[in-house]
Amino acid sequence: MVRYPLILINFKAYRESSGKRAVELAKVAEEVSKETGVEIAVAPQLTDLALVAQSVEIPVFSQHADAVGPGSHTGHVTLEAIKDAGAVGTMLNHSEKRIRADQIDFLVKKARELGLLTAVCSNTPEVTAAMAALGPDMVAIEPPELIGTGIPVSRAKPEVVLNSVRLVERVNPEVKVLCGAGITTGEDVEAAIRLGTVGVLLASGVVKAKDWRAAIMDLVSPLLK
Amino acid sequence: MVRYPLILINFKAYRESSGKRAVELAKVAEEVSKETGVEIAVAPQLTDLALVAQSVEIPVFSQHADAVGPGSHTGHVTLEAIKDAGAVGTMLNHSEKRIRADQIDFLVKKARELGLLTAVCSNTPEVTAAMAALGPDMVAIEPPELIGTGIPVSRAKPEVVLNSVRLVERVNPEVKVLCGAGITTGEDVEAAIRLGTVGVLLASGVVKAKDWRAAIMDLVSPLLK
Amino acid sequence: MVRYPLILINFKAYRESSGKRAVELAKVAEEVSKETGVEIAVAPQLTDLALVAQSVEIPVFSQHADAVGPGSHTGHVTLEAIKDAGAVGTMLNHSEKRIRADQIDFLVKKARELGLLTAVCSNTPEVTAAMAALGPDMVAIEPPELIGTGIPVSRAKPEVVLNSVRLVERVNPEVKVLCGAGITTGEDVEAAIRLGTVGVLLASGVVKAKDWRAAIMDLVSPLLK
Amino acid sequence: MVRYPLILINFKAYRESSGKRAVELAKVAEEVSKETGVEIAVAPQLTDLALVAQSVEIPVFSQHADAVGPGSHTGHVTLEAIKDAGAVGTMLNHSEKRIRADQIDFLVKKARELGLLTAVCSNTPEVTAAMAALGPDMVAIEPPELIGTGIPVSRAKPEVVLNSVRLVERVNPEVKVLCGAGITTGEDVEAAIRLGTVGVLLASGVVKAKDWRAAIMDLVSPLLK
Repeated sequence: MVRYPLILINFKAYRESSGKRAVELAKVAEEVSKETGVEIAVAPQLTDLALVAQSVEIPVFSQHADAVGPGSHTGHVTLEAIKDAGAVGTMLNHSEKRIRADQIDFLVKKARELGLLTAVCSNTPEVTAAMAALGPDMVAIEPPELIGTGIPVSRAKPEVVLNSVRLVERVNPEVKVLCGAGITTGEDVEAAIRLGTVGVLLASGVVKAKDWRAAIMDLVSPLLK
Repeated sequence: MVRYPLILINFKAYRESSGKRAVELAKVAEEVSKETGVEIAVAPQLTDLALVAQSVEIPVFSQHADAVGPGSHTGHVTLEAIKDAGAVGTMLNHSEKRIRADQIDFLVKKARELGLLTAVCSNTPEVTAAMAALGPDMVAIEPPELIGTGIPVSRAKPEVVLNSVRLVERVNPEVKVLCGAGITTGEDVEAAIRLGTVGVLLASGVVKAKDWRAAIMDLVSPLLK
Repeated sequence: MVRYPLILINFKAYRESSGKRAVELAKVAEEVSKETGVEIAVAPQLTDLALVAQSVEIPVFSQHADAVGPGSHTGHVTLEAIKDAGAVGTMLNHSEKRIRADQIDFLVKKARELGLLTAVCSNTPEVTAAMAALGPDMVAIEPPELIGTGIPVSRAKPEVVLNSVRLVERVNPEVKVLCGAGITTGEDVEAAIRLGTVGVLLASGVVKAKDWRAAIMDLVSPLLK
Repeated sequence: MVRYPLILINFKAYRESSGKRAVELAKVAEEVSKETGVEIAVAPQLTDLALVAQSVEIPVFSQHADAVGPGSHTGHVTLEAIKDAGAVGTMLNHSEKRIRADQIDFLVKKARELGLLTAVCSNTPEVTAAMAALGPDMVAIEPPELIGTGIPVSRAKPEVVLNSVRLVERVNPEVKVLCGAGITTGEDVEAAIRLGTVGVLLASGVVKAKDWRAAIMDLVSPLLK
């Protein structure tokens, strides 16, 4: 449902990417994706999910899902609601919204049944390996101390990415690895791919940029050949 | 921002009220509200919030909010996002999504600044009094053992409602009391009002009904004079 | 089961007050209490509770309790286990271990049945009032931003304490108010009492002191007349 | 610090194994261990940990640990406190007290530094593999639906145990596998060992037994040759 290399833009809970501006940002990403042919996906805030998914044709992810099925679960986000909203998948276990391994196991299996993709975040090579053992479509290694810093993990801690890729290869080679934390430029994307990952997960590098279009264009530039 | 008496319909995480069907159900509620003049509000699933709020003119509530401001909070629901989505307020502390008193204190104060309404759920008269002490716009007393049973609290445990109303009167008389749990009919609404509350909070009684319009019409019927 | 004024020493998870040293510190507190006649209670780490309660005769509190009864609850702390360990009561809802209002409601009612005391922490006057509405034996107002600073709330924010006392008086006058956060000296204890509280809750002021006996002696000094 | 095969008795939050009775049960386990030479360890309630660890010479485990170091963490259980209490290790992630993978990663690494053992529970073969990827000393596979039933996993779902053993072998062959859920007799222990595990984790089968000594004797009987 998505092609690789993949650039996944997480809108987080930033006000710059909330409500109407969520739709605007998603449309900018869609434009760049159409113009360049590079796969770009967006993960808007939960409250904007159906609205954004209705407004664009690029892949839309939820930022989170709860490990419950449909029913009496006020305030929870089910995979079924994510699907009904029109999204193609969900991020899980972001360092700002961690869940437990048994919940991820439940969600990965259920998502597969529903035809939804899962991208599970992790913080260390060992946790990346553990998440890969659960069989999601993607794992995204993001050392939390680098998130939002603008210092790319590929530069500050390439060994964390390399070790993650190596362990995933051993534990479950079908799982794709994304690289997150501190990604802001096309150079970072290039470094991430060189380290063996199939793309990047980023947030502030785009959302907080003065010029969304220019920021995304820069990210995709190394993939344009 | 809302008028009383109020009928607040919680869509929970039911699949019957998810995605496109969330918009349909909200429109049925809107029609009945316009025809009868009775105030009806809806609380769709988080993922549908902006979409529903854009589609109807009746008051829309979030089912939940997290006690964080905008920022690096992937997967969280901020009051700001709720406002940007077009909702008028939020439910808090539903028995299926309880949060802590200090979080409710934070959210009630922040919602007031943002011009959003808060409806805080509680399970016992003592907890109702505690929630009233935090100064939300509404408290909704819902003994969890009756939720989803079709046995209205107003019939099964009228003393729980009466004690709640009495304690709120003493602790913070400006707080409105809603009556929840087991509400399905106009008769239940009438009983709730007779016990001193200003309306009802309900879910399956409408969402699971074969005929949404008929179910809502029945609820508002005792208020039509 | 305790007399007022009360000095309650929280051992937190400090290593200085863990294992054998927990027993030593409790014995120092016991000695000072016996010598001066001032009521001093201790709240050791969970793992040390039974050992400390067996070693001293002064009141021992748990730092926390979980809202479950005895049974299949691995890793949980029940009120029954607290009682069987020999403690006289428990702290609840410390800012470092907050729980929900419905859980505090459950625990306060159950503790009363079991003959255990409850001291519920709070962070603002509104939350103090909410906690008082649940009817515990004590509430302890502790603005989290002052905890561990050595700047006593009684000096930095006397209005927080005064408002808390005033609101508790209105909501539930039988509840005693303790004053916490930044307490380290006898002067702080005196100020706390002057503001209408019946004692103090403190931690690092004693645990991290070079000389435990001297630190506790200083605390009780204003109460020695 | 422990020998295999290992029988690990979890006292859960049962009142039958709380306070003084925790010490009594631990002493019965110690007696049987000394008489038969079979390794038996106990995991008392958190509140009894130091008291039990002081009273017996067999290995004592905590039922849980929190992913924080010593410090301002009221109501938390640190690995340091577990060590200071005299325990040799800790269970983690029991189905009744699950924690997140990043927390387990933190705790496993820290426990190794402190010289403490870790036994991480899991519910499915995939989660067992994930936990093994984190490198604890042991994983304990326990399908939650069988816990407390008296129906041993080795009989009801031998494939869950076999798959777990096989996956651990692939992911991290140094990790030992224990078998839990529904274990009550020596026959169950024998079956568990036959399936490739190095011992059992059980609770009610011993704690709720009329005769603790007879129950433990029965468990160790197949290991007496």
